[in-house]
Amino acid sequence: MKRTHNKDDLVQTGLEIIFSRGFNGTGIETILKQANVPKGSFYNFFSSKEEFGLAVIDLFLSEMTALLKPISEDLSLPPLERIRRTFELLIARFEENNCSKGCLLANLGLEMSDQCEPFRHRLEDALQRWIDSVAEMLKEARETGAVRIEVEPSILAESMVASFEGALLRAKVKKSVEPLKNFIHLYFNVFLA
Amino acid sequence: MKRTHNKDDLVQTGLEIIFSRGFNGTGIETILKQANVPKGSFYNFFSSKEEFGLAVIDLFLSEMTALLKPISEDLSLPPLERIRRTFELLIARFEENNCSKGCLLANLGLEMSDQCEPFRHRLEDALQRWIDSVAEMLKEARETGAVRIEVEPSILAESMVASFEGALLRAKVKKSVEPLKNFIHLYFNVFLA
Repeated sequence: MKRTHNKDDLVQTGLEIIFSRGFNGTGIETILKQANVPKGSFYNFFSSKEEFGLAVIDLFLSEMTALLKPISEDLSLPPLERIRRTFELLIARFEENNCSKGCLLANLGLEMSDQCEPFRHRLEDALQRWIDSVAEMLKEARETGAVRIEVEPSILAESMVASFEGALLRAKVKKSVEPLKNFIHLYFNVFLA
Repeated sequence: MKRTHNKDDLVQTGLEIIFSRGFNGTGIETILKQANVPKGSFYNFFSSKEEFGLAVIDLFLSEMTALLKPISEDLSLPPLERIRRTFELLIARFEENNCSKGCLLANLGLEMSDQCEPFRHRLEDALQRWIDSVAEMLKEARETGAVRIEVEPSILAESMVASFEGALLRAKVKKSVEPLKNFIHLYFNVFLA
């Protein structure tokens, strides 16, 4: 007998499928089938596909936080090194996925920002928190003299996160990590050096 | 009597709708209805939704080429100024659209690269041609001494295009052109200066 599946299984399966096919490309029936949950029980757990999508975004965010926290909180590393290693970890993960999927925030950001305000707000909030954490580390790096260029940490952080997402987009279309490796090289060895 | 609609009208309508809702979020029926074309006539023009999507990408590319050509071919402008003005024109267009839509290459690149190889190839080809044209101008800029940093023009061009797409993504989620203005400032006044 297969074990009973619950709300968490549905969200986990939803994350896998939405990551590959997008939100509009994913039907609820596909998720229920793959999660082995009977048809009709979806609405016991979620009031709408939109509410389900928000739960999927939250799961992605908690996975990302768990993945990156050991690096971003490792105060034995210089701040710039912490930033670099978090990006490198994301690149390694993308490479393990054969240059597919990428970042759910970016995928849904482009697909859904004009269609669904609750999604856009959740994604905006997540991106801004990521940028704020990079800005904190850049501020620290500037205080220690590791970053010398005269740009507000908040602006530089937004640019780094946006450029990383852009390099990831380029890499996903190219099916190569090269644009991501160039992103690391340019920011850490050229622009900020 | 409404005028007869043809293949071009279908593709034009498809571009508008796919730009807003994505490829998977757009049904053929919606396009036919909005283009005022009778149901059933779609397959007189296209063998599949995929073939239709490729025609939509081609229309977007020809519109972009027509928009940017007067600047990129204006040899009275210094090469770096030509690059800057093409990005600024794209930003102005995005602002006119109330920070929506963005770049179809990016939207479909994230949505479709893992799902449809013919789309990915078309998008890859288009992005690479854009990067090549920026690389040509950067090479020229380096020869005239306007760009001094020691980075291969092809790598710098890929980074500029990717970072622009990333800034556009950030701007679409934020519903603000600020990240795009910061992209211009950082690249043209800080990183390349």
